[in-house]
Amino acid sequence: MKIMIIGATGMAGSAITKLALERGHDVIAIGRSEEKLANLPANAHLETRAKDAFSLTLPELQTVDVVVDAMATSPDKAYLHVDLATKLVSQLRERQQPRLVFILGAGSLTTGDDAHLFVHDIESDPANASFVAIPQNQLAELNFLRTVTNVDWVGISPAANFTPGPATAIQYGHDTLLTDANGDSTTNSGTMAVAVLDEIEQPQHHQERFTVANQ
Amino acid sequence: MKIMIIGATGMAGSAITKLALERGHDVIAIGRSEEKLANLPANAHLETRAKDAFSLTLPELQTVDVVVDAMATSPDKAYLHVDLATKLVSQLRERQQPRLVFILGAGSLTTGDDAHLFVHDIESDPANASFVAIPQNQLAELNFLRTVTNVDWVGISPAANFTPGPATAIQYGHDTLLTDANGDSTTNSGTMAVAVLDEIEQPQHHQERFTVANQ
Repeated sequence: MKIMIIGATGMAGSAITKLALERGHDVIAIGRSEEKLANLPANAHLETRAKDAFSLTLPELQTVDVVVDAMATSPDKAYLHVDLATKLVSQLRERQQPRLVFILGAGSLTTGDDAHLFVHDIESDPANASFVAIPQNQLAELNFLRTVTNVDWVGISPAANFTPGPATAIQYGHDTLLTDANGDSTTNSGTMAVAVLDEIEQPQHHQERFTVANQ
Repeated sequence: MKIMIIGATGMAGSAITKLALERGHDVIAIGRSEEKLANLPANAHLETRAKDAFSLTLPELQTVDVVVDAMATSPDKAYLHVDLATKLVSQLRERQQPRLVFILGAGSLTTGDDAHLFVHDIESDPANASFVAIPQNQLAELNFLRTVTNVDWVGISPAANFTPGPATAIQYGHDTLLTDANGDSTTNSGTMAVAVLDEIEQPQHHQERFTVANQ
C-alpha cells in the first residue's frame, strides 16, 4: 500500500516508517526537518518531503491509501494536534480514501474504579504542568474525531508510558488504559508500529479509537 | 467597528448586517451569491465580497475587529458548520483579534427536568430527519469551540424557533433553552441581531456560549 506518514522523524513516526518499509509498503515521509528526514533508512520505496503538514493539499493526500498522523508538537503549540486533525478531516469529508490513522495519547483513556479519564491523573500532578497541554489537546482531538461520520478515520492510543523500544507481544483494548501483569502501563514505539501496520493492512476499526500496550 | 459577516445574505446574517450598518459600523459582507449580496441595503459603510468563506485568508480576517460566522448550510453539508469553525480558529490561534462570534443552533441548549440536550428532542421526531444534521453539527461545533482557550470566541444560540422578524424585548440565558411567558420558544432574526451587536459593542462573554430569545 501507499502510506503517508506525518511526523515521520518522531518517535512513533520513525518506528512506523521503518516497519512500513520492512513490510514492503511505499512510504511518503513528511517532516519539517530535511536533516532529520535524511536519517531515515535509505530505501527505494521511501520518499521524503520536508514540509509543514498544514500545507498538504488534497491532491497530495489523495495519492496515498492511508495517511498516518504521528505529528509531535511542543506543549505550547499542543493545539496543533487538534488543528491538523480538523484540517485533514475537512479536506477529506465524504471521501473514502485516504484512510486517516491518528496516533493519540493515553489521556483520553479511562482508568480506575470510577473510570475517570487518565488525563485527570496527569493534570493532578504539578510536575506534569509543563506538558499537560499535550494530553489535553489529544483528548480534544479525539472528541472532535468522534463527531466525524463521513471520513474513514481510526485513532490509536498508547499506554501511560510511550517510549522508544522494540516491538513486544501486544495487548489491545478499546477505551481503557492498559497495564501488564506487573501493573506497568507501557507501549514501546515498536509495539505501536506493529499495531498501526496491522490495522492498516487488515482494518478492524472504523471511526473509533483503540489502544495498544506491551503485554 | 469593522465587522466581517460570513453568511451575510442569510436570515441571521442579513439582519445582523442591516443593524450593524444602522449602528454606524463598517461591514464586510461575505456571501457566495453576488446576486443576493446586491440585495443588501446600499450603504457607504458596506463592502460586499462574493466568495466562499473557506477561502478567507488570515490577512483578510485581520483587517476587521470582529468576524461573525452566520453561515447557513444545506443539511447534507451540515459538517461545514464544524469545518468553518475549526478553520477560523486554526487561523486565529494565539491572536486576540479579530474576535469570533458564532451563531449556533438551539440543539446544544438543555431543557426539561433532566436537563437533556434539546437536540435529542429534535432527533426524536422522525419529521425532523431531513434537517437534524444541522443541529447535530452545530452541537459538535460548540463542543469543539469549548476546547479552544487561545482565541477570543463567543457563541450565541437562538431559541427553538429561529424565524425572520423584528427585534422584540430580549431575554438572555446561558445554556438552557428559553421560553416566553406563554411557553413559546422563539428568537426573531431582529432579536438575534440586537443581541449580536450589543455583545460586539460591549463584550460580556468570552470563550462561552449564551442564548437569546424573544421575551
